[in-house]
Amino acid sequence: MSSSISKTIVNINGAIGPSTEMKISVLDRGFLFGDSVYEVTRTHNGTPLFLQEHIDRLWQSAASLEIQIQQSPQEIIQEIKKTLDFLNEEHAYFRLIITRGEGDIGLDPSLAKSNNFVIIAKAFHHNPAWWYQKGVNLIIPNIERTGRRSVDPNIKSGNYLNNVLAYMQAKKANAYDALMLNAAGNITEGTTNNIWFEKDQVLYTPELSVGLLKGITRDKILTLAKKLNIKVIEGVFKPRQLFAASEAFLTSSTREIVPVIKIDDHVIGAGVPGPFGKKLLNAYRDYLEQHIKNNQDWFQSYLKLS
Amino acid sequence: MSSSISKTIVNINGAIGPSTEMKISVLDRGFLFGDSVYEVTRTHNGTPLFLQEHIDRLWQSAASLEIQIQQSPQEIIQEIKKTLDFLNEEHAYFRLIITRGEGDIGLDPSLAKSNNFVIIAKAFHHNPAWWYQKGVNLIIPNIERTGRRSVDPNIKSGNYLNNVLAYMQAKKANAYDALMLNAAGNITEGTTNNIWFEKDQVLYTPELSVGLLKGITRDKILTLAKKLNIKVIEGVFKPRQLFAASEAFLTSSTREIVPVIKIDDHVIGAGVPGPFGKKLLNAYRDYLEQHIKNNQDWFQSYLKLS
Repeated sequence: MSSSISKTIVNINGAIGPSTEMKISVLDRGFLFGDSVYEVTRTHNGTPLFLQEHIDRLWQSAASLEIQIQQSPQEIIQEIKKTLDFLNEEHAYFRLIITRGEGDIGLDPSLAKSNNFVIIAKAFHHNPAWWYQKGVNLIIPNIERTGRRSVDPNIKSGNYLNNVLAYMQAKKANAYDALMLNAAGNITEGTTNNIWFEKDQVLYTPELSVGLLKGITRDKILTLAKKLNIKVIEGVFKPRQLFAASEAFLTSSTREIVPVIKIDDHVIGAGVPGPFGKKLLNAYRDYLEQHIKNNQDWFQSYLKLS
Repeated sequence: MSSSISKTIVNINGAIGPSTEMKISVLDRGFLFGDSVYEVTRTHNGTPLFLQEHIDRLWQSAASLEIQIQQSPQEIIQEIKKTLDFLNEEHAYFRLIITRGEGDIGLDPSLAKSNNFVIIAKAFHHNPAWWYQKGVNLIIPNIERTGRRSVDPNIKSGNYLNNVLAYMQAKKANAYDALMLNAAGNITEGTTNNIWFEKDQVLYTPELSVGLLKGITRDKILTLAKKLNIKVIEGVFKPRQLFAASEAFLTSSTREIVPVIKIDDHVIGAGVPGPFGKKLLNAYRDYLEQHIKNNQDWFQSYLKLS
């Protein structure tokens, strides 16, 4: 077992220990069916980024699947704090999973009497500098993003094979990630990130109706763009519109804004990270800094909430 | 915890015990992403039904996801035998799960170095007699079956939320199950079974191209129908064609052939199990009996295979 695994801390329903010791029932519906929801974020000097937003979205995902969460958000946040204290890392990655729970085997959700919660925490290692300096390349896989009427991609669930299959194609092509299209051939999202492009100082990103996760960083960029007087169009786009962009980038909670310089054989703009993305990344990092400053007492603030 | 759970026996990578003790890492990709494949069958007086077919399909599902199984089929079959011996039930249900394994968290399959295998076994309780005597009702949910280009339904994987969501709608409507349509509005399959209908002595079932699991009982019925000189058409069908049938039924490994008497508000035929389905069920049960007789030395036969 690699050292990165042994340093991983796991909290299952309030019991905390190393990942090698803290295990889950194979009758848990998260294991049997992917019948679970999750969130991922990181801490910066001990402050979790956008915790309120992640907690809100977790509850929304659970509601979409009619998973009843027995714990209050405050209880879950206390467990996050306990887990992060146990981990004791300045910068931490953590994943919060709610499963529908365990019971006799069958699709019927009522077989599980109460949800399980799992928190996985480990040191957060800074992303490679070259992602931001050189930019990354994507492919468009022949795997289609799961349709909204099948399992809505806006539910952040334990069903991630669609994304795994797409990622596998990216890896074989030596690409950083796969940008998935929906059944209508419109661009949706990367396997764990949202996509953006810029042309003539207008910023474009796929709208929710095409089937994608409403990213928290995506939301923040939309707000930030407004502040910076950048025109943003959320819409329905074909790959060729993206290929004709001056710049492109992807966003995620753990990666912020990563420039995209090539998609399949199409070089985007000048083939290097451009000024538009750099300006946005700087603005986003300033915003993050403010957010961290304003949330250093996050744990106390949370506990005050009723 | 209910008694049915405590009597469940679990084998994880060769270690056997009660389900309350045998647990899996939360870093297992089966738990994180549903990155796993599985099979379910039952034993009759100790003989597993169609074990060869289930083992073959498991390996096919794994190959579709590029999951490398470190164990040979013979090794897995020895573990099934050990688990069934430990359970010690005349009639057993068992589920065999292969996950891609555990590793650091990320979509990249290479993060997991070797697969895990899990066998879950418990007593098999006979299905309620009324299913066969009275027949069951289905609904058509507004959840669409996942498209073949997203996650092919013919891969029997750990991503089952699509089916869970459809089943939830059936349960709310007091129906036995949900019969899912694909994005084109063609009938595919139930949440854990294949669908059939009969009209003018011709038997119809959806073809694989619409997106469904190539059921093992489905295969057996196709063979049996040929023997019985029944004309079978595998095709692309709309719900209205099914509604106009004289009889309908569903098939699965643990349920054999269950008559369907109503779908949404549409009564099928006379609204009672009909002679066609009964004849087929009798023929199938005769076939099963032969299969069981011919496979009583299943374990010794398997070990002889190279």
